[in-house]
Amino acid sequence: VRVRPGHELVVTTDLLIEGRHFRRGADPRALGHKALAVNLSDLAAGGATPRWAMLAIALPRADATWLRGFSTGFFALARRHGVDLIGGDTTRGPLAIDITAFGEAPAGQALSRAGARAGDDIWVSGALGGAALALRRPQLKAASRRLHRPEPRVALGQRLRGLAHACIDVSDGLASDLGHILERSRVGALVHYEAIPKDASLREIKNSSLERRCVLSGGDDYELLFTAARAVRSRVESLSRKLHLPLTRIGEIVARRGATVVDGEGRPIWFRHGYDHFA
Amino acid sequence: VRVRPGHELVVTTDLLIEGRHFRRGADPRALGHKALAVNLSDLAAGGATPRWAMLAIALPRADATWLRGFSTGFFALARRHGVDLIGGDTTRGPLAIDITAFGEAPAGQALSRAGARAGDDIWVSGALGGAALALRRPQLKAASRRLHRPEPRVALGQRLRGLAHACIDVSDGLASDLGHILERSRVGALVHYEAIPKDASLREIKNSSLERRCVLSGGDDYELLFTAARAVRSRVESLSRKLHLPLTRIGEIVARRGATVVDGEGRPIWFRHGYDHFA
Repeated sequence: VRVRPGHELVVTTDLLIEGRHFRRGADPRALGHKALAVNLSDLAAGGATPRWAMLAIALPRADATWLRGFSTGFFALARRHGVDLIGGDTTRGPLAIDITAFGEAPAGQALSRAGARAGDDIWVSGALGGAALALRRPQLKAASRRLHRPEPRVALGQRLRGLAHACIDVSDGLASDLGHILERSRVGALVHYEAIPKDASLREIKNSSLERRCVLSGGDDYELLFTAARAVRSRVESLSRKLHLPLTRIGEIVARRGATVVDGEGRPIWFRHGYDHFA
Repeated sequence: VRVRPGHELVVTTDLLIEGRHFRRGADPRALGHKALAVNLSDLAAGGATPRWAMLAIALPRADATWLRGFSTGFFALARRHGVDLIGGDTTRGPLAIDITAFGEAPAGQALSRAGARAGDDIWVSGALGGAALALRRPQLKAASRRLHRPEPRVALGQRLRGLAHACIDVSDGLASDLGHILERSRVGALVHYEAIPKDASLREIKNSSLERRCVLSGGDDYELLFTAARAVRSRVESLSRKLHLPLTRIGEIVARRGATVVDGEGRPIWFRHGYDHFA
């Protein structure tokens, strides 16, 4: 394949294992979607335009129905984002799916976790906590869609080039993924819990401790978390309107290492000193 | 990462599963070497110069000794070929290793399985059958090295640009991999069994049926199999001397589809009609 002249290559790989990342008997169509979606989400966080993917898959047996479902989910999302499947590998084994996705960004403009600066606003797209709630309450249909059919924020990622200082997708949970930005950027953060956009399904539960776990530590939302200078606040807000996608300021980057989440009265409800040994 | 201007990107991925591609308890150092080697071998078959790799790995547990061994094997080979590890993924699960390797070739010069033409010589590097014999007779030390520490023919692959019409690495076995060239190139082949260079360890066994199975159907040798015009015969021979690597003519490409292997008297000892449904 050929990378467009003047562009750099952004690549990512994600290994999904049955019993760890998805349940045995998971809907193959949702799986085909999600296996690609998590990789496109990584490309989005890199500010890249998706181009190609490779699929390496281990299957316990060649089950035509399963393969048809998986392919349908995979290719529907691939087509929507102009992604060509250019190769891969198939073998027999316990169900495991490894997708490598390739994207392009104009040279020097790819986004990374490094680059956040003290004084930056911290932004998040969409709403958090829905996927984590769906894991715990599978009967909640709307939340379940967040878990099984995440929508990678590809258009947003590309528009954040030249605007965001640092970017990551929320795959492990807000606290953990913010930690990756803080560690690589060598800065700290103050986050306002009340400001965090929460998935609508969380309103149905009356359990503030469960809500906090879902919002702060729940993964699988695949929203973008990014930092940007205060000076571009209005540009981010205008981008939100253009994309019909909520973009919410949830806090600010500070010079002092570590992260603190405060409640409406400014009381710390979660904190971590530094991130050097974040696991 | 940035691809050199005027170059195209050659990518490959290989998924190795414990119990299928290697035994439980396999030496982690040999495994680190081989997991990368099989990918570099694919790049070599594409005529590419290796540049980068990503490693996705599922591990049942974090075993420091195992990881040290694996890393030693992986990085020794990576350094030798100037390959940088640029990313990857780690997760808990049954041992599975997926490496994606990236290489470059001047635009339009990458090699592929398509392109073989009637009248081409068929060439193979090194010697075949050693790895397959090692699987059946683990006590044979020399053969065992072929199986566990294959040497990807990276320098050869790059020198075949502009010289070979089609190229593949012998990973599934001569008959099978030649079949891939024939299928993609829409041609046939006549192979002279006596001409095929056989691993020295095969001399120790006095079993011509086992020898044939190892030479024709044994995989894991990771030699390059390529076709080139008769007119460049002397250039291939001179390349062999330059690289101190045997390159042997084993037959010729013919217009009629299918493949035939003949013995010293010209009697067919193996054949296949067409390759359209080759499995």
